[in-house]
Amino acid sequence: MFPFDKNAYLERFSKIRKQTINICKPLAVEDFVAQPIVDVSPPKWHMGHTTWFFEALVLENYLQDYKDFDHRYGFLFNSYYNTVGDRVQRPDRGHMTRPTVEEIIHYREYVDEKMIHFIKSESEKIDEHLSYILELGLQHEQQHQELLVTDLKYILGMNPIFPVYKDYIEEVPDSKDTEVKFINVEEGIYEIGYQGNNFCFDNELSRHKVYLNPFRFMERLVNNGEYLEFIEDGGYSRFNFWLSEGWDWVKKQDIHAPMYWHKIDHKWYHYTLSGLEEIKPDDPVTHISYFEADAFASWKGKRLLTEAEWEVVCQINEPLPNKDSNFVEKENFRPLPCKNGKMQLLGDLWEWTGSAYLPYPNFQKSDGAIGEYNGKFMVNQMVLRGGSCATPKEHIRNSYRNFFHPNLRWQFTGIRLAESL
Amino acid sequence: MFPFDKNAYLERFSKIRKQTINICKPLAVEDFVAQPIVDVSPPKWHMGHTTWFFEALVLENYLQDYKDFDHRYGFLFNSYYNTVGDRVQRPDRGHMTRPTVEEIIHYREYVDEKMIHFIKSESEKIDEHLSYILELGLQHEQQHQELLVTDLKYILGMNPIFPVYKDYIEEVPDSKDTEVKFINVEEGIYEIGYQGNNFCFDNELSRHKVYLNPFRFMERLVNNGEYLEFIEDGGYSRFNFWLSEGWDWVKKQDIHAPMYWHKIDHKWYHYTLSGLEEIKPDDPVTHISYFEADAFASWKGKRLLTEAEWEVVCQINEPLPNKDSNFVEKENFRPLPCKNGKMQLLGDLWEWTGSAYLPYPNFQKSDGAIGEYNGKFMVNQMVLRGGSCATPKEHIRNSYRNFFHPNLRWQFTGIRLAESL
Amino acid sequence: MFPFDKNAYLERFSKIRKQTINICKPLAVEDFVAQPIVDVSPPKWHMGHTTWFFEALVLENYLQDYKDFDHRYGFLFNSYYNTVGDRVQRPDRGHMTRPTVEEIIHYREYVDEKMIHFIKSESEKIDEHLSYILELGLQHEQQHQELLVTDLKYILGMNPIFPVYKDYIEEVPDSKDTEVKFINVEEGIYEIGYQGNNFCFDNELSRHKVYLNPFRFMERLVNNGEYLEFIEDGGYSRFNFWLSEGWDWVKKQDIHAPMYWHKIDHKWYHYTLSGLEEIKPDDPVTHISYFEADAFASWKGKRLLTEAEWEVVCQINEPLPNKDSNFVEKENFRPLPCKNGKMQLLGDLWEWTGSAYLPYPNFQKSDGAIGEYNGKFMVNQMVLRGGSCATPKEHIRNSYRNFFHPNLRWQFTGIRLAESL
Amino acid sequence: MFPFDKNAYLERFSKIRKQTINICKPLAVEDFVAQPIVDVSPPKWHMGHTTWFFEALVLENYLQDYKDFDHRYGFLFNSYYNTVGDRVQRPDRGHMTRPTVEEIIHYREYVDEKMIHFIKSESEKIDEHLSYILELGLQHEQQHQELLVTDLKYILGMNPIFPVYKDYIEEVPDSKDTEVKFINVEEGIYEIGYQGNNFCFDNELSRHKVYLNPFRFMERLVNNGEYLEFIEDGGYSRFNFWLSEGWDWVKKQDIHAPMYWHKIDHKWYHYTLSGLEEIKPDDPVTHISYFEADAFASWKGKRLLTEAEWEVVCQINEPLPNKDSNFVEKENFRPLPCKNGKMQLLGDLWEWTGSAYLPYPNFQKSDGAIGEYNGKFMVNQMVLRGGSCATPKEHIRNSYRNFFHPNLRWQFTGIRLAESL
Repeated sequence: MFPFDKNAYLERFSKIRKQTINICKPLAVEDFVAQPIVDVSPPKWHMGHTTWFFEALVLENYLQDYKDFDHRYGFLFNSYYNTVGDRVQRPDRGHMTRPTVEEIIHYREYVDEKMIHFIKSESEKIDEHLSYILELGLQHEQQHQELLVTDLKYILGMNPIFPVYKDYIEEVPDSKDTEVKFINVEEGIYEIGYQGNNFCFDNELSRHKVYLNPFRFMERLVNNGEYLEFIEDGGYSRFNFWLSEGWDWVKKQDIHAPMYWHKIDHKWYHYTLSGLEEIKPDDPVTHISYFEADAFASWKGKRLLTEAEWEVVCQINEPLPNKDSNFVEKENFRPLPCKNGKMQLLGDLWEWTGSAYLPYPNFQKSDGAIGEYNGKFMVNQMVLRGGSCATPKEHIRNSYRNFFHPNLRWQFTGIRLAESL
Repeated sequence: MFPFDKNAYLERFSKIRKQTINICKPLAVEDFVAQPIVDVSPPKWHMGHTTWFFEALVLENYLQDYKDFDHRYGFLFNSYYNTVGDRVQRPDRGHMTRPTVEEIIHYREYVDEKMIHFIKSESEKIDEHLSYILELGLQHEQQHQELLVTDLKYILGMNPIFPVYKDYIEEVPDSKDTEVKFINVEEGIYEIGYQGNNFCFDNELSRHKVYLNPFRFMERLVNNGEYLEFIEDGGYSRFNFWLSEGWDWVKKQDIHAPMYWHKIDHKWYHYTLSGLEEIKPDDPVTHISYFEADAFASWKGKRLLTEAEWEVVCQINEPLPNKDSNFVEKENFRPLPCKNGKMQLLGDLWEWTGSAYLPYPNFQKSDGAIGEYNGKFMVNQMVLRGGSCATPKEHIRNSYRNFFHPNLRWQFTGIRLAESL
Repeated sequence: MFPFDKNAYLERFSKIRKQTINICKPLAVEDFVAQPIVDVSPPKWHMGHTTWFFEALVLENYLQDYKDFDHRYGFLFNSYYNTVGDRVQRPDRGHMTRPTVEEIIHYREYVDEKMIHFIKSESEKIDEHLSYILELGLQHEQQHQELLVTDLKYILGMNPIFPVYKDYIEEVPDSKDTEVKFINVEEGIYEIGYQGNNFCFDNELSRHKVYLNPFRFMERLVNNGEYLEFIEDGGYSRFNFWLSEGWDWVKKQDIHAPMYWHKIDHKWYHYTLSGLEEIKPDDPVTHISYFEADAFASWKGKRLLTEAEWEVVCQINEPLPNKDSNFVEKENFRPLPCKNGKMQLLGDLWEWTGSAYLPYPNFQKSDGAIGEYNGKFMVNQMVLRGGSCATPKEHIRNSYRNFFHPNLRWQFTGIRLAESL
Repeated sequence: MFPFDKNAYLERFSKIRKQTINICKPLAVEDFVAQPIVDVSPPKWHMGHTTWFFEALVLENYLQDYKDFDHRYGFLFNSYYNTVGDRVQRPDRGHMTRPTVEEIIHYREYVDEKMIHFIKSESEKIDEHLSYILELGLQHEQQHQELLVTDLKYILGMNPIFPVYKDYIEEVPDSKDTEVKFINVEEGIYEIGYQGNNFCFDNELSRHKVYLNPFRFMERLVNNGEYLEFIEDGGYSRFNFWLSEGWDWVKKQDIHAPMYWHKIDHKWYHYTLSGLEEIKPDDPVTHISYFEADAFASWKGKRLLTEAEWEVVCQINEPLPNKDSNFVEKENFRPLPCKNGKMQLLGDLWEWTGSAYLPYPNFQKSDGAIGEYNGKFMVNQMVLRGGSCATPKEHIRNSYRNFFHPNLRWQFTGIRLAESL
C-alpha cells in the first residue's frame, strides 16, 4: 500500500466502485428500499454508505475546499462510527425513502469524480496513514458488495412471489465427489495471522504461534443430503444435540430447516437467486446458523474446526484462491457441489468455526474512526473463514476473519466437520 | 343504493379510482414502499388493497369466468379479513418490494376494466346485497385515500430531509376569528345515528334516542397558540392533567409536543406536506393523541364533547359540508385557521370525542367478510367525528363514526372543548 | 359522614382493620411475598399499603407530633399516588422481602393505635374534608380486602401443588333454577348515579338522566354448563365471535378456557380456594375476561348490558344487598348456583358491562392525592357492576362502578346476557 | 472417587448438606421466596433443588423401594435438565410460595436420611459411574452454596431498607500492598486442564498443550481506588473504551458504576452483606460485568488474561488454596485488600478472563442428564477463574472453569490486568 501507486489505485477504484452498481442492475427501484430484518440493509443504503465512507474519511479531511454533496447525508449514511457523529438508527434505514436511488447515484458520481480528482492532483498528500484509509475504502466497499448480495437475497427471498434475480443454467459436472474423507493434521507449533506486505485488517494481527493438538478434518463441505438425514432423524426436535441457547432459539423462532427452505407437498425446496428450486442433495448446505452447524456436528459425533486449525489447514492445502474457486465473480450466487477432491476452503461458503471472535496476542486497535472497524465487536460472535460465492475473490485471504452472532444465517454459511485425535 | 343506478355508479367508480392515482402522483417510486410504523401502510399496498377489495368481493364471486390477475395477490393485499383467508402479516407490508408500483398499476387497470365490463354487461346480477358491496368498495377506497395522505405524510415527515409533497401558498385571510366563544345546548331527548336512504356504515345504526344533559361547546377548534400555552405551562411534565396511561405514554415515548413538531434554535416548527414551517398560532393544533386532547382539556378545566353531543351540535349547526369546508379536494392538506364564525365541525380536523367506540342499540354486524368491517374494533378505541382536510368531502356525514386508539396521532386530529352546565 | 360520628367510626375502623388480618390467617408466611403477575400484589404489600394510606393522608397531616413508624415505608407502600411522592415500581413489589410480615403487623398496630388516639382525642380537627378521607380510608381498605382474596387465589392457584385456603362443604340446594328467562325493560328516561347522603366515590357522580331504548336481560348469570357448550362449539377457535383485540389475545396467550380451568383426562377441573374441583354445570362461570364475555354473548346472538341498563335493572329488582347475597362475609369464596328466581345482581360475580369506564356528566375530580383515585383510569377499561363473593357486603351500592382492562380475569367476573328490543 | 470410600463420603455429605442450612440461618422466611431477576433463584429453591438432585439422580434410580417425598417436587425443583423432564419455568421460581421453607427442610431431612441409609446399607451398588454422581451431588451443592450467597446478597441488596446479613468487624491490616507490579511470563508450550485422580468437571478435560506468547500480569486485583479513577475520567460516558455490545448495555441499562454502588451526597457507598458502607479505595473492585472489566482494561491500555495464561500463572504462583485464602469459610463475604504480595489468584474474586467458554480438545460430554451440566452452555459466555469469597474452599482448583454472560455482575467478579510483550 505504501508507497502509494496512483495508477494502480485509480484502476481498482473505478473497477470496484462500478461493481457495486453492477450488482444492483437486476433490481427494481422498490427493491432498493426495504429492510425486512435489522441485519439486512436496503441496497440504496449500501450504495450511499460506501460513498459516504470516502467522503467522510478522505474528501472532508484531505481535499482542498471540498463541498459536501449534501450535508444531511452524513446523518443518513453513517453506519456505526460514534467517532464520526450521530446517525439514523439502524432499524430505521428501511424507512428512509429519500434520497432516491437516482439521487444516490448522483452522489456516487459526485464523490467518485472528486476522489479521482484528488488522487490525480493531490496525491502528494497521501502518506502511509491515508494510503491505508484509501485501501480500506476499497476493502470496505467489497465487504458491502457481499452484503448487497446477501441482503438482496433476503429481500427477494422473503417475498411470497420469489422473484428471480438472475437465471442460472447448471453445468452438468463431469465428475462428482460426495464421498466423505477425513485428513489428519499432526500436532505441533504452527503460526497464524497475516504475514506479508499487502492490506490486512487489524484483527488478523499479530502473526503468532499456536499449538495444535492432533486432529482431522472433512475434505469437503457438508451437503444437503447429509443435512436432510439430520432433519429426518429429528435433528430439530432432539434437545441433546443443541447448545442451550440454540435450543431456545429453535423453540422460540420455530425453526425446522435452514433459512430459505420450504416444504411443499412433502418435498423440500429452497429459494435461490434464480427462484424457488428443489433441493439438490450434492449441493453444500447453506444458510445455517452456528447453532445448527454445532448441532449437526454434535449429531454426527464430530465438531467444527477451530479458526487456528482452519487457517493451518488452508495454509497447507489451498493457500490462495485458484481459477475454479467459486467467488462472486463467477456469478453463481450459490455454493457448488464438490468436484474431484477440491476442498472448497476458499469460496463457496463461509465456514463456521468453533472459535469465538477475540483479539490475537498484541492486537492493536487503530486510532479514531478506523479503530471502530473490528475490535469493538469482539464478544458474543463466532469466527467464519474462507469467503463465499458472494465474496469478491480479491477480498479474501487465508488469514481473513469474518464474524457473526451464532443465530444469524442470512449469509452464505456452511459446515465442515472435524475431530480431535 | 338500490335499485342500482348503473351510469351513476360507473361515473363515480372512475372518478374515485382515478383519485387514488392522483394522490400518489407527487411521490417517488421509493416512497411507495416504506412502512415506518405499523399503523402506516406503504402507498403501493393501499393501491393494491383497494383493488383487491373489488376483485375478492365482487369479481371472484360474480363475474363469469373471471381469471385472477395474479393468484398470489390475495395473500399480499388482504388487510384483516379472516373470512377471506391468510395474508401477509401487517408489520411485513413494508418488506414486500414486489409487485412493483408499475405492476400494481397494471393490476388496477385490469380490475377496473373487468369491473366496468361487469357493471355494463352483467348488471342484472346486482341485487341489494351486491349493490351494497359495490358502494362499500367506493367508500372503502375513499377511506384509504385519507390514509394515503396521512401515511405518505408520515413517510416523508419522518425523513430528516423533509421532502415537499406539494407547495402551498397561503391565502391572506380577510378576517380572523380567534376569540373563544362557547355555545349552550339545552338538555333533553335527541336522536343520533344515520337517517336516510343513502349509504352508511353498520356502526351508524340504529338511529336512536339519547338524553343529553345541558352543556356548552367551543365554537371553533383549539389552535396552536392555545396549545403552546399548555406546553409552556409545563403541560407535558405535570402528571395531574393526564390519564394514567397517557402519563405512561408521555414518559415512555418521551413526548414533548404534537407529532411533527421540532424545536430548532428555541423556535417551534412543524412538518407539513409543503415542508418544514414555523408554527402559526392561529392554525388549529393537529396530530395530537386522545391523551393529549384530554390532558389539554383537563388543564383548561374543561372536557371533550361526547359523540352524541357532537352529533347533536352538528345536526343543529352544520348538518352538511358546505363550499368552504376544508376537505381533501381543496388540496390544502392542512387545517385552516377559523374564519368569521365558521365552526369547523365538518372538515379541517377529526375531533377527538370523550366517547369510547361501542355499538349503538340494535347494532347488527353484517354477515361474512363485510361483518369484519367495523364491529370487531369496538374496544379500546375512542370516537372521532367530522372528517379532516384529508377526507373526501363526499365521504363524510354528521353521523359518521371514526375511531382510533388513544395514543395514535398520525391522523389529522384536533380538539374542541366543552363543559357540563 | 359529616358531622363525624366518633364512636361509630371507631367501631367500624376496628372491625374493618381486623378483617384484613382475618383474611390472611390461613396463609403461610411465604404466601405473603409473591407477585406472580403485575396485577397481583403480595398480601404483605396490601397489609402495608392500606396502613400507609392512614399514615400518609391522616396522621402525617393531622396528628400533632406524629412520628413515622419508619420513614422508608412511604417509598415501599405508596401504590400510584404521584402527588405523595416516589415509590417502589409496581412490578418490584414481589421482590421486597423486607419488611417482614411480622414487622408489617407491628406497623399496622402502631398506626391503629395512633389513629384511635387521634380520633378519640383530636376529633375536633375533623372537618368535612378529613371526615371524607377517614371514610375513604375504610372504603379503600375494603377494596384491598377484595384484592387480597383474588390475589391470594392467584398466588395459590398458579402453584402446581394447588394448596387449599379454606375447606368448603357444599350445601345441597333445596331447589335449583337453571332455566333461562329474559325480563323486559321499557324505554324511557331513567336516572343513574349515586343518590343519598352516605359515602360514594367521585366516579358515581353526578346523578343524571339517561335515555334507555327498550331491552331485555337474562334473569340469572350464565353458568358453566352454558359456557362449556360455547367451548365445545369451538368458541375459542372461531374468530368471528371475537373482537379483533380479543382474538389476538386468545392466539397470543393460547387461551382455551376460563382462568383456573384445567383439562385432566378429558374432564374439566378448576382451582377454587378449596383446591382443585370438577366443574359443576350449574355454578356461574367466572374468571373470564371481557373479551370472553363479549365473545360468548356474540355466540349466543346477544350482548351484555350497558352500565346504565344494569343500574336501572338493579334499582328496580335488587336495590340493596339482602341476607342471602353471596358476599365475602359468607366465606364461600365462590359464586353459587342460582336459586329460586334470585337474580344475583348484587354479590356472586362482578358483571362485565358493555360500557367503557368514562366520566359522568359534571364529574369532578377531587383535589390532591384523592383526585388520583378514579379519574385518571378513565380510558381503555370496561365497567363491571354488582360486587362479588370476594366483596365486603357493606362496600357495595347499585351505583358502584368497578373497572378493569378487557383482558383481565383474575377477579371474580361473570356474564349476564341482554338484547335490544 | 473410585473405589468409593463410604465413611469419607458420609462425613463430607453431612458437612456439606449442613452448610447449606447454615448459610440460610440469618434469613427471614420472606427472604427465601423472592426472585428479583431471572438469574437469582429464591433461597428455598436452592434448598429444594440441591436435594432433588440426590433424589432424582441417586435415590430414584438406585435405592430399593424408594418412595418419593412428594412426586410434584420433581416438577418444582428441576433446574434445566431436559433429560429428567418438565419443570417450572425459570422466571416462575419466585412465584412458588409452596412448598414452604419448613416443608423443604423436611424434604431435605427425608432425602438425607435415605441417602445415608443407602450409602450405609447398599454401598455395594456403587460402581464408578454412581460414585461420580455421588461426588457430583456434593460439588453441585457447593456450587449452589455460592449462588445462595450471591443471590441472597441481591435479594437483600436491592431492598431500599438494606438489611444486614451478618455484621463485619474489619481487621486493621498490619501492612498494605497497593503498589502496581507486573510479572513477566515467558513464551513457550505449557499444559492446562485438570491433572490428577480427584473429581473434576468434564469441561476441565482433556489436559492439553497450549502455546503462550510472552506476556505479563498484574500481581494483585484492581482496587476501588483505581476503578474510581476510571469513573471520574468519564469511563462510563466514553464509547471508545467499550465493546459495542457493552456500550449498548451501558446506555440501555443506564449504568454508571459497579452493581450495589450508590452515590449519596457526592460520596460513593456500596451495599455489602453487612449493610451499606462507604467505598474503601484499597478493597478490590467487585460486581462488575465483563463489559466493565474489558472497558477498564482498555482505558488502562491493557487487557485481561486469557484463561490459559491465568491457569499457567496460577500453576506457577498459587497452585493450591492456602490458609489465608479468602473463601466462604472465612465468612468475610467480601474481597479483602491485598496484603504483602499475596496474589489473590484463588479466592477473593472470580477474575474475568478474555476467553470465551468453549470446549477443550477432546472434550467429551457425559451421557444422559449429567451431560447437560456444562457442554450445552459453551456459547456467548466468558470464562472466570479462581473462585471468590463466596466459594467453598474445597470446591476450587486452578483448572476450574466458571462462566457467565458478559453482562452479568451479581457474582463476586473482579479484574486483573495483563499485556502482551
